[in-house]
Amino acid sequence: MHLHQLDTPCAIVDRARLQENIQRMQQRMNQLGVKFRPHVKTSKCLEVVNLQLAAGAHGITVSTLKEAEVFFAAGIRDILYAVCISARKLPRVLALRRQGCDLKIIVDNAESARQVGEFGRAHDEHFEVWIEVDTDGHRAGIDPAEGELLTVAAQLQENGATVGGVLTHAGSSYELHSPEKLAALAEQERAGAVLAATRLRHAGIPCEQVSVGSTPTAFAAQQLAGVTEVRAGVYAFFDLVMHNVGVCQLDDIALSVLTTVIGHQREKGWVMVDAGWMALSRDRGTASQQRDYGYGQPCRLDGTPFDGFIVIGANQEHGIIAAQPSQPAADITTLFPLGAQLRILPNHACATGAQHAVMHACDAQGNTAPWSRFQGW
Amino acid sequence: MHLHQLDTPCAIVDRARLQENIQRMQQRMNQLGVKFRPHVKTSKCLEVVNLQLAAGAHGITVSTLKEAEVFFAAGIRDILYAVCISARKLPRVLALRRQGCDLKIIVDNAESARQVGEFGRAHDEHFEVWIEVDTDGHRAGIDPAEGELLTVAAQLQENGATVGGVLTHAGSSYELHSPEKLAALAEQERAGAVLAATRLRHAGIPCEQVSVGSTPTAFAAQQLAGVTEVRAGVYAFFDLVMHNVGVCQLDDIALSVLTTVIGHQREKGWVMVDAGWMALSRDRGTASQQRDYGYGQPCRLDGTPFDGFIVIGANQEHGIIAAQPSQPAADITTLFPLGAQLRILPNHACATGAQHAVMHACDAQGNTAPWSRFQGW
Repeated sequence: MHLHQLDTPCAIVDRARLQENIQRMQQRMNQLGVKFRPHVKTSKCLEVVNLQLAAGAHGITVSTLKEAEVFFAAGIRDILYAVCISARKLPRVLALRRQGCDLKIIVDNAESARQVGEFGRAHDEHFEVWIEVDTDGHRAGIDPAEGELLTVAAQLQENGATVGGVLTHAGSSYELHSPEKLAALAEQERAGAVLAATRLRHAGIPCEQVSVGSTPTAFAAQQLAGVTEVRAGVYAFFDLVMHNVGVCQLDDIALSVLTTVIGHQREKGWVMVDAGWMALSRDRGTASQQRDYGYGQPCRLDGTPFDGFIVIGANQEHGIIAAQPSQPAADITTLFPLGAQLRILPNHACATGAQHAVMHACDAQGNTAPWSRFQGW
Repeated sequence: MHLHQLDTPCAIVDRARLQENIQRMQQRMNQLGVKFRPHVKTSKCLEVVNLQLAAGAHGITVSTLKEAEVFFAAGIRDILYAVCISARKLPRVLALRRQGCDLKIIVDNAESARQVGEFGRAHDEHFEVWIEVDTDGHRAGIDPAEGELLTVAAQLQENGATVGGVLTHAGSSYELHSPEKLAALAEQERAGAVLAATRLRHAGIPCEQVSVGSTPTAFAAQQLAGVTEVRAGVYAFFDLVMHNVGVCQLDDIALSVLTTVIGHQREKGWVMVDAGWMALSRDRGTASQQRDYGYGQPCRLDGTPFDGFIVIGANQEHGIIAAQPSQPAADITTLFPLGAQLRILPNHACATGAQHAVMHACDAQGNTAPWSRFQGW
């Protein structure tokens, strides 16, 4: 189907932009001499992941066991589940490994390490476990300089689990926008992970993998000595948050929401569209950044932005587009006529994508093919 | 399955609270002497809608044509699609009506009215159209006192469509929290809708239905003279936004997200759980209200809240629970032990529910049954 024929709202993926984004990241990783393990939580879509693997990715990162199950069923064996494991989830991990999935899990505390080891012993399974370290204080992980790191590793080994590596995620990179600060954070992320690996090795514990990453630090890193692999997800689509961080241009953003103008409130300068937060998500990630895009950046059907206009409001199935205060007055009914189709660039591609069970992959001529994405846990 | 056995994160519906909420609204509508047409966008779940109909609801309100298609297939004929129609969607409306669905659509401008009429004439179909009027300036609709109202009605009639009624939605009620202001807004909503209907009738245009509603104004209305029906959606589940508005207690909230403690950051007082924004949604509706619940209110498995704690942060599959500043210091590892299951009350039930394809309906003993909900357009 052509873009013109699609029911709105729906998600659109620009194939050329997607392919360029994938190539750009993979080339950068090749230059830095590290393996690349894309985070598939952004797309949850086999077509996208196949492009990432074809470009040279080694294995995938997942945020849910459902992602692991779906992508393993599609033939991908090398999978890292990058959320600290809960004992309740171990039966599903075991089932995947018994089927031949090379699934790695992570822990960041001694109690979880003990539980993994005990469950493994009870089921005669040597889980491969990576230890999460915290290099920027933004979420989970052990301080790479603290004694707890060695306690966790010992707890794993004593119970028969394999310490496969260390990993970290400098997610606070999303809050930065200067190249210098991003490069400094990338170095902090690298150094922290390498410190943890070095301490483990000095203690006689093998630590083969040293895994770091976030989209901003992956692009900002000047060198990755001691790192074996990088993880990143949102780079495949990019979004307005990443544009504010400074790692992409607006016309690199590969995901958008197709919508139709359904009305106007002329006195207020409002254009009503049929994409509300159900299609755009409630993500307001740009609200705390240097430029606030509201609920997204409206573009023409060909992808060129309406400069000076943003989605100022979103109800469940209504979006409201309006000019920003600095914008000269314009006749909104001419610029955005009733029935016109628009595309809206999202604040956060992971969140907006998650609202859609299908993404319509679109070529330069506007011809589309439906790509499924899955939901749930 | 029992609550204890469910994989986390997942959505839980407290059946007793749901039933009480449904009864409470229906009784109020019965007392006010109006029909009640629940908005099913909140649940998108046949089990919930069947409870609403069993309690006395007349027909349903939908926010998407997919809702209309799914609920019509389940045997519900009387459906109001309460988002202004786009000409692109008329073939699906026509298909539903041809199958026997009594589907009503809405418009708020003369151009759409003309398009509906012309499409109807071309396909020999007399669409029933309601006119949306704007009684609080918050979204779509025509000023009920302006001439455009009659222009739109004339445009419909000239083209062979039926003017079935007027409707309005005082969505700005979500921004209030005093009973007096809510009652005043409910009266403003009622008066505006009745004014529009009266003007149409004086102009010789039949206007059978006068439809108003939002959950807060439905509860706040002191009288509904001239109104024929009320619409509301979120009341079935309620949520923290509605609690702040003042129309429910915390222990009326029927929707929650079941989650598991996966770690701690002791120095920061953080409890890490496996419900991030993918399970909770990105909705931060309480951020602008009198009490900000972050991404939600954590509760014990039995539903009793952890006073003084909220979900302070959410990444895709990580939530962070922490004490509010006023809270006395507590040992978070004792209060929230690793592996413990918690329930999180949502800011906005419509947004949180939309993240889940299944809701587990739970009885007082913790036994659950899976209720499907659907997604998409």
